[in-house]
Amino acid sequence: MEVAKVAIVGYGTIGSGVARLLLNNSERIARYAGKRVELVRVVDPDLKRPRSYALPPGLLTADLDSVLDDPEIVAVMELVGDAESSRSVMLKLLDSGKDVITANKTLLAEHGAEIFKRARRVGRSIAFEAAVTGGMPVVAAITECLTANQIESIHAILNGTSNFILTQMEENDSEYAVALAEAQQCGYAEANPALDVGGGDTAQKLAILAHLAFGARVDWHEIPRVGIDVVDIDDVRYARELGYTIKLLAVAELVPEGLELHVSPTLVRHGTPLAEVRGAYNAVRVVGDAVGRVFLHGLGAGQMPTASAVVADLIDTIIGRSAISFRTLNFWPADVESPVPLRDPAKVPSRFYLRLNVDDRPNVMSEITGILGRHNISISSVIQHETEEDSSSNAVPLVIMTHTSPKGDVADAMKLIGQLACVHPGSVRMRVRD
Amino acid sequence: MEVAKVAIVGYGTIGSGVARLLLNNSERIARYAGKRVELVRVVDPDLKRPRSYALPPGLLTADLDSVLDDPEIVAVMELVGDAESSRSVMLKLLDSGKDVITANKTLLAEHGAEIFKRARRVGRSIAFEAAVTGGMPVVAAITECLTANQIESIHAILNGTSNFILTQMEENDSEYAVALAEAQQCGYAEANPALDVGGGDTAQKLAILAHLAFGARVDWHEIPRVGIDVVDIDDVRYARELGYTIKLLAVAELVPEGLELHVSPTLVRHGTPLAEVRGAYNAVRVVGDAVGRVFLHGLGAGQMPTASAVVADLIDTIIGRSAISFRTLNFWPADVESPVPLRDPAKVPSRFYLRLNVDDRPNVMSEITGILGRHNISISSVIQHETEEDSSSNAVPLVIMTHTSPKGDVADAMKLIGQLACVHPGSVRMRVRD
Repeated sequence: MEVAKVAIVGYGTIGSGVARLLLNNSERIARYAGKRVELVRVVDPDLKRPRSYALPPGLLTADLDSVLDDPEIVAVMELVGDAESSRSVMLKLLDSGKDVITANKTLLAEHGAEIFKRARRVGRSIAFEAAVTGGMPVVAAITECLTANQIESIHAILNGTSNFILTQMEENDSEYAVALAEAQQCGYAEANPALDVGGGDTAQKLAILAHLAFGARVDWHEIPRVGIDVVDIDDVRYARELGYTIKLLAVAELVPEGLELHVSPTLVRHGTPLAEVRGAYNAVRVVGDAVGRVFLHGLGAGQMPTASAVVADLIDTIIGRSAISFRTLNFWPADVESPVPLRDPAKVPSRFYLRLNVDDRPNVMSEITGILGRHNISISSVIQHETEEDSSSNAVPLVIMTHTSPKGDVADAMKLIGQLACVHPGSVRMRVRD
Repeated sequence: MEVAKVAIVGYGTIGSGVARLLLNNSERIARYAGKRVELVRVVDPDLKRPRSYALPPGLLTADLDSVLDDPEIVAVMELVGDAESSRSVMLKLLDSGKDVITANKTLLAEHGAEIFKRARRVGRSIAFEAAVTGGMPVVAAITECLTANQIESIHAILNGTSNFILTQMEENDSEYAVALAEAQQCGYAEANPALDVGGGDTAQKLAILAHLAFGARVDWHEIPRVGIDVVDIDDVRYARELGYTIKLLAVAELVPEGLELHVSPTLVRHGTPLAEVRGAYNAVRVVGDAVGRVFLHGLGAGQMPTASAVVADLIDTIIGRSAISFRTLNFWPADVESPVPLRDPAKVPSRFYLRLNVDDRPNVMSEITGILGRHNISISSVIQHETEEDSSSNAVPLVIMTHTSPKGDVADAMKLIGQLACVHPGSVRMRVRD
């Protein structure tokens, strides 16, 4: 049987998972790849750190050149965590004639155009299923399976850490800080969780999906985003009372005015598939003009789910499917303007959930609803629970659900409402999805 | 730009949808195919019947030879409904050197080995994403995206008609016959719905999935199956009271003893993704040893969703991905024994829902629970509602949920219970999935 020699660069969590799959399941992988796939080198500057998978002796090396200079190595899995190192390694691998598989979303979001241009120039391919939602095959779904469709929208839960925290808050009635600490204890959240809970990770993945589905060229920093770090347990409770759960949604929606992109905590109606996504799971809901709604749900991160996608990409690379996809799909083409304008976020309509802390006295409701009315925002429901007569606080929460209105109008109204004497600081505004 | 000439054989509902996509979206399809895709012929014996899409003049013909004899036609979409005609057309197309795309599940379930052998002999490829769940890309997911995994189980809702009827029963509290009539009015069920509601369609699709995921070679007739035509509205109501909904589940599960396959109405716990699949939708839940649980949900049939999959397969065929997949995956290899034995259905454990019509008199419960106990079947919950004192009927329904027990033991116990004088005919037994 023919042999395909391959290497791993970056021997961290994902790298260990990939090595485990390649070495433990070589027979199955050979069946799918039509060749025996031999892992001949694993490169990492740190040779000492203990890993979850013990490599056979002789495989691990700190010498990247031993891969670059070995013409028998045909495909390399680039699993370096840091985006800058990853970029530099990618370019070297491509220049040395290797087909590359990467799991690095930041690399694609920040340097996609550069590395894809280089790969085209040197005639190599890049496969990147693992970079977006780990083992859940959303890249293949959009770029290979739904090609007969104009994609109309994507609604997605793309950050398992945030979803885990929101699920903990909902199921255990925990404050945000408690749920975050629990996520850190379980290994779902990093010591510095900012990229996850602030929505940055989700925005990077959304920028990639927007490119795959719509050809959009968007800097992920420019996608309007709010993270889950603003979500209060009170909002989780009110949402439940109203029949909703709060999810960190990434949205890409094509309308005649352009492409709407945003990341924000959103009230999602109970009983819809997105609302049922719990724990560290991801989900992507894609609507295409022919296929209708397709929904994928799975683990979007973690060692073995991500390794699953890396090895599937490796097999595709070895049998030649990746080269064909890479050539025909022409991702991140050089010097091309985004074919679709981004829509002005202020114009995007939505239903909104508003929570205000207001004085418990006459006329408050009429002042607030008056401002909403003058902005043409109609109210679909209101919650104001009875307070105890001897309550020491003079502020009570008032929750308002609006009908669909442009985001800008709601923001303007909320600004005026915030200036009312009867309204205390700390108002909350979140989108609602039915 | 290069041109790829293609043809459709079988101009029914799916054929019209495919023609619509090819002719209305030629620019988008050319971008994905790297060539202009030109539909040059549509073959159907019936030239008169009105269709939902009006072809340009000159395309429709009754003459299959005009496709077979045209060497410029490289790929043909075989969309003939009837499996026998489909088989004969497929063999002719392959023999004349065409790559073929099919949407016919019965063809694969009945004649997979024959047509794949022929395709290999003549060096052509067969693509068949549309044959299992229409536009929902489960074939690609299993055979291309999850190749690093040992698939451990598949739980799926594969028949949109049955799921539509069950959803109608649940949401409108309708009897089965009423819901079936409604499905027929909406065009979801055929005049003769037997293949759908009897579970045969689901069993054919499960036989295909079991081959793709486990290499199993199983005659679909041999898969134990029960359809939804046995589901009574009373069972839907009791299930709801217990926190479940009834779904027609197809199950393939690999255990050390072999592969378990069955199709049966099953109580699925509310709040799980499969329970939330409503209306004509399909869903597939796959568990792989690396990726964990991946769940797909979408329209598994219908004109445009199926056409979406056919055209994606056509693009894959034109750019050469299908040929690679066909060659390496080696589906339905000739003269190969199934690599995995089927598990004895009697040994398969499950929780069960039992509904009995029993005399409303002392000692009934102890007789029944005595038999269950002697078969080592323990009870997790019981429902017996109070009857009116002056009720004219002497039979009352008794609902029992068991803990996990082998199916054979439960069947044996139910047989003895059915012989009790206090138990009337019409007992119901369904699996439960938590």
